Amino acid sequence: MQIAVLTFDGFNELDSFMPAALFNRLRPKGWQAHITSPTASVTSMNGVVVQAQQPLAFAATADAVVIGSGINTRAIATDPAVLAALRLDPGRQVIASQCSGALVLAALGLLAGVPACTDLTTRPWLEQAGVAVLDTPFAAHGNIATAGGCLAAQYLAAWMIARLASVADARDVLHYVAPVGEKQAHVDHAINVITPFLGAA
Amino acid sequence: MQIAVLTFDGFNELDSFMPAALFNRLRPKGWQAHITSPTASVTSMNGVVVQAQQPLAFAATADAVVIGSGINTRAIATDPAVLAALRLDPGRQVIASQCSGALVLAALGLLAGVPACTDLTTRPWLEQAGVAVLDTPFAAHGNIATAGGCLAAQYLAAWMIARLASVADARDVLHYVAPVGEKQAHVDHAINVITPFLGAA
Repeated sequence: MQIAVLTFDGFNELDSFMPAALFNRLRPKGWQAHITSPTASVTSMNGVVVQAQQPLAFAATADAVVIGSGINTRAIATDPAVLAALRLDPGRQVIASQCSGALVLAALGLLAGVPACTDLTTRPWLEQAGVAVLDTPFAAHGNIATAGGCLAAQYLAAWMIARLASVADARDVLHYVAPVGEKQAHVDHAINVITPFLGAA
Repeated sequence: MQIAVLTFDGFNELDSFMPAALFNRLRPKGWQAHITSPTASVTSMNGVVVQAQQPLAFAATADAVVIGSGINTRAIATDPAVLAALRLDPGRQVIASQCSGALVLAALGLLAGVPACTDLTTRPWLEQAGVAVLDTPFAAHGNIATAGGCLAAQYLAAWMIARLASVADARDVLHYVAPVGEKQAHVDHAINVITPFLGAA
């Protein structure tokens, strides 16, 4: 299971590294998440410089794609070069957006008729793009999922793991990252959030 | 408020980037968190290469220090060069460890007689170092704090913000990162976790 975590200049560290770190917990089972960027390195919204692990073209061949968030997403979502490079296929790939990443999903036409989750700052821009925005942290329709609020990235990751591996794997990964002394409650809550979206795929 | 987030080769991305990202929400108020490393770049436990924003010597002059976690911390905690370079001063600095970072705190003698939090994997090693380990996600004694479980990094960050700025600022930062639709409950829970440690400083 190869996963592209799309990460652009100005990226929000939590929105890229939380899903990537959770997926990479399953490396012993053959999963691998890659920071995937249009340039050899990208600089976060807080000035952290990270080397890309894959070029943008990798997204087209990945099994799953997470579109990260950041302070430049509105511009990225109108960049014809980026949109053309992505070549995502929801018939074959599981595709999710974190916070403002939903603007890229919308620009690619992947949220047509699909209500979506995003962060409070992005909400008006996503609505302007014609997308109905939910007051919930996570939603999925078929192979397309959206999450809103940095820490909702764990729901997005858990849903992908539950879909593409198993609910037991999702529980294991959530258990690992959860705070000590709160692990069972934390896992149960996250699984409750994603369970409505684990029906017939 | 200048904060060193100590980040070594083999680092856990969540344990460094979650506190750093939360502190950097207060940039408009003059806060700045820096990925602080012994080398010009460090590679995470999942192969992500990140450029250091500050050298290890920065830790001695920072207002606050977070010791991150990773797969090499046991070796780092016995590296005389690293321990000598840190020169932390709990009389002047607020100092916290995330997960296995507690091994470095212990090696520096900063957990003498202080029960601590850490992750489940590190627990036996920290106990072997003579530290009593708690079954809770966060604890603080004076200027020394410890957190266990990746997502407990938000408690560590919120406590530092509450201590060095205000509880209102901690609430604002937690609210920003919390999942949409769960923000109030999320903030209230985190503040409840840290409140017992916000007494007379």
